[in-house]
Amino acid sequence: MGIVTAAASMSLDGFIAHDDDTPGHLFDWYSAGDVEVPNAGDLPPFRLTRASADHWTAWRSSLGAVVVGRRLFDLTDGWRGVHPLGVPVVVLTHSPPTDWAWAGPSTVFVTDGIGAAVAKGEALAGDAVVGLAAGTVAGQALTARLLDRVDVDLVPVLLGSGRRFFADAVVDPELLSDPTVCVPSARVTHLSFPVRR
Amino acid sequence: MGIVTAAASMSLDGFIAHDDDTPGHLFDWYSAGDVEVPNAGDLPPFRLTRASADHWTAWRSSLGAVVVGRRLFDLTDGWRGVHPLGVPVVVLTHSPPTDWAWAGPSTVFVTDGIGAAVAKGEALAGDAVVGLAAGTVAGQALTARLLDRVDVDLVPVLLGSGRRFFADAVVDPELLSDPTVCVPSARVTHLSFPVRR
Repeated sequence: MGIVTAAASMSLDGFIAHDDDTPGHLFDWYSAGDVEVPNAGDLPPFRLTRASADHWTAWRSSLGAVVVGRRLFDLTDGWRGVHPLGVPVVVLTHSPPTDWAWAGPSTVFVTDGIGAAVAKGEALAGDAVVGLAAGTVAGQALTARLLDRVDVDLVPVLLGSGRRFFADAVVDPELLSDPTVCVPSARVTHLSFPVRR
Repeated sequence: MGIVTAAASMSLDGFIAHDDDTPGHLFDWYSAGDVEVPNAGDLPPFRLTRASADHWTAWRSSLGAVVVGRRLFDLTDGWRGVHPLGVPVVVLTHSPPTDWAWAGPSTVFVTDGIGAAVAKGEALAGDAVVGLAAGTVAGQALTARLLDRVDVDLVPVLLGSGRRFFADAVVDPELLSDPTVCVPSARVTHLSFPVRR
């Protein structure tokens, strides 16, 4: 079975979006270089630095499924059925939409909690990585000790307020280890923290 | 004239202390190794990893003065007149204490704002670095474009809530640059972000 990670672009002051859910400058690194990296679905290609492109393509190719919360699903309209990362999407929600226009086999709704959502992601991913979008879902997964790793794309901006990577999760201070990856780039530093599951 | 930096140990979720001003596990790296590094005044020696010791001693030896806010001064009782870093302390406060037991030439009170406090620190430091303790003072200095650098000792813990590095400061998204230093260690990663002054 693959590992489970939570991943997000995060400001230096710990936010992954403004209060209104917009990303501000958190995604500037998506266009900070000249290496074109295509996305699945509707999202235009990224233009990354060589360092970010190498990191990102390796990360992306390791991925087998993503797990997201209902807010992100609604904000993106479920990526209209095709996630930019080209993998199946598990949506954790109390009430799945009944008339969603883009319903299909690559979007799965789970109603019975974060553990079931991650298990579904693992089943879909096989030996590949399950990636959780950050925020409430990441906080729940970390608290429930479902994560093996936390991948932070640390962005040198301050948002002042907003949505936080792990919401208000407080965990055992020994749970996270020091980063095993620190890749400097442009408008981002890629960090990866192992988690003691 | 030397440069001005704000420096602090910060949790992965952006906090430099709990709400009650205690540091929790943010300073675990002070005792995560076996290289003894002495402190001035009352503070016992640190026991650092080799990587942290090399980083820390270079950082410390570059320092000529520190600027702190009134809260930190009160919490530490002004380090009883001798800062652990062995440099003069500028305290920004609306009302300097009149009967402080440890008053002396190495503790200077400034009442007329962050600009004056930093200027006083620069005068005391000469060609050396002025280090600002984080929180309100760091946020004010960053907003007023008085900083040349931000030094973050990034600690792999989540506090959930607490005191934030730059309080609620929101600044030009281009103000901070990518880190020029990334030193992995034990219970900390030392990062240094240049600031466009």
